[in-house]
Amino acid sequence: MEKFLGARGVSHGKKAYKEHSKARTGNQFQRVCSLIDAPVKATNIVWHHAQVTGTQREALLNQRGGTIWLTGLPSSGKSTTAYALELELFKRGFPAYVLDGDNVRHGLNKDLGFSSVDRAENIRRVAETAKLFADAGMVVITSFISPYRVERDFARRIHLAAGFRFLEVHIDTPVEVCEGRDPKGHYAKARAGILKGFTGVDDPYEAPLCPELVCRTAEISTREIVFRIIECMAKEGFWRDEVGPLALGRGLR
Amino acid sequence: MEKFLGARGVSHGKKAYKEHSKARTGNQFQRVCSLIDAPVKATNIVWHHAQVTGTQREALLNQRGGTIWLTGLPSSGKSTTAYALELELFKRGFPAYVLDGDNVRHGLNKDLGFSSVDRAENIRRVAETAKLFADAGMVVITSFISPYRVERDFARRIHLAAGFRFLEVHIDTPVEVCEGRDPKGHYAKARAGILKGFTGVDDPYEAPLCPELVCRTAEISTREIVFRIIECMAKEGFWRDEVGPLALGRGLR
Repeated sequence: MEKFLGARGVSHGKKAYKEHSKARTGNQFQRVCSLIDAPVKATNIVWHHAQVTGTQREALLNQRGGTIWLTGLPSSGKSTTAYALELELFKRGFPAYVLDGDNVRHGLNKDLGFSSVDRAENIRRVAETAKLFADAGMVVITSFISPYRVERDFARRIHLAAGFRFLEVHIDTPVEVCEGRDPKGHYAKARAGILKGFTGVDDPYEAPLCPELVCRTAEISTREIVFRIIECMAKEGFWRDEVGPLALGRGLR
Repeated sequence: MEKFLGARGVSHGKKAYKEHSKARTGNQFQRVCSLIDAPVKATNIVWHHAQVTGTQREALLNQRGGTIWLTGLPSSGKSTTAYALELELFKRGFPAYVLDGDNVRHGLNKDLGFSSVDRAENIRRVAETAKLFADAGMVVITSFISPYRVERDFARRIHLAAGFRFLEVHIDTPVEVCEGRDPKGHYAKARAGILKGFTGVDDPYEAPLCPELVCRTAEISTREIVFRIIECMAKEGFWRDEVGPLALGRGLR
């Protein structure tokens, strides 16, 4: 397995993952790694090169392709953040698209449940789909609990390897606050033992070690969080300085 | 299983498929159908609605989202057509993206081989991914042999059900011409028995019953084919009349 690269290329190494993955057995870890790092099964395929380059596609959309990967506990505010961010970008003329558990699990990943292997495959497919969108010049905002570092770092790795931008944003809301919100009643069901393997209750959440951004929804408003993400995107080169949302004079705050 | 809808909503019915799927056993057909029509496995998920509507996303990109589904024998000219179409659309300012076997089998579908079930799952995922792109307001051009009607019609069905455009384009090149081209040497290997289950040699290709367009690459140029597809796209409402590529006065021919 290749080494893991965190934000700004910091390597954590397999050992760090294992150490931080306290609640996961070695076998489970290996299974997920082998799923994610599986070689290409098909033989007799070659890579076709498009006549339109990625750079040209990006120029047409006035932005660079990449993924804003939101991660956090259930009910931490990922979807709220994702759709608010999409709206702010849209208002300023930048096309973005939200991939979330719901539009993906109803279609592309409808064959997957919530076993650890299915969850890993869910995130693997989302990461690869996000990469296709990034290649098309789009900004993708993913909204998934994505509790395991190894899976988020797989997403990062395939984006960086292809030259696309990738921001890991930790929606860092204390579990008590998430549980207090619980709009779908999932925490209550998990506490009652009706839902098994629920992240934050009886399944672990591995907080990012060095995300590009940490957003505490219990402390600051969604509007402020969206502003910070856009600021971070600007720094990471999603737009040329003179055309980015921060340059447009239509104050974000 | 729901009934199959061909071009312009013509229903073929399951019987027609079975009758036309001469080379496929009933069991194989059933297996593929059950894969494609499987219910959503995950429970406890609800649909989140974006704040930006599909119509607004389309307005930003000056086009309507949808998929141009190219189908045909190996070496029939699908990828050539796909990339030439993407280039023509790009030149006129319309963002499009090609999904093909190569960028998909190296990533999203790298866990799939060429068994009939894997092939069906390959096309199922591509159809669902194309639908996500269409939802984002993009024009997607898919370039897959996609030899089975049931799979192509699944792609059509999920697009139409969501209100997206879908054009099935048959790249109709005689097998002798394809075999004469054979740039990857696959036909030769298949004839020699080295490649098994090769479409057009020892695996069937089910030609579309009523595609929106049939393009005979052995008779007309790629440029002409691209023009006809764009003309067909215009008819199907991919653009408002006054902004479409045909209205721009930059002659396509």
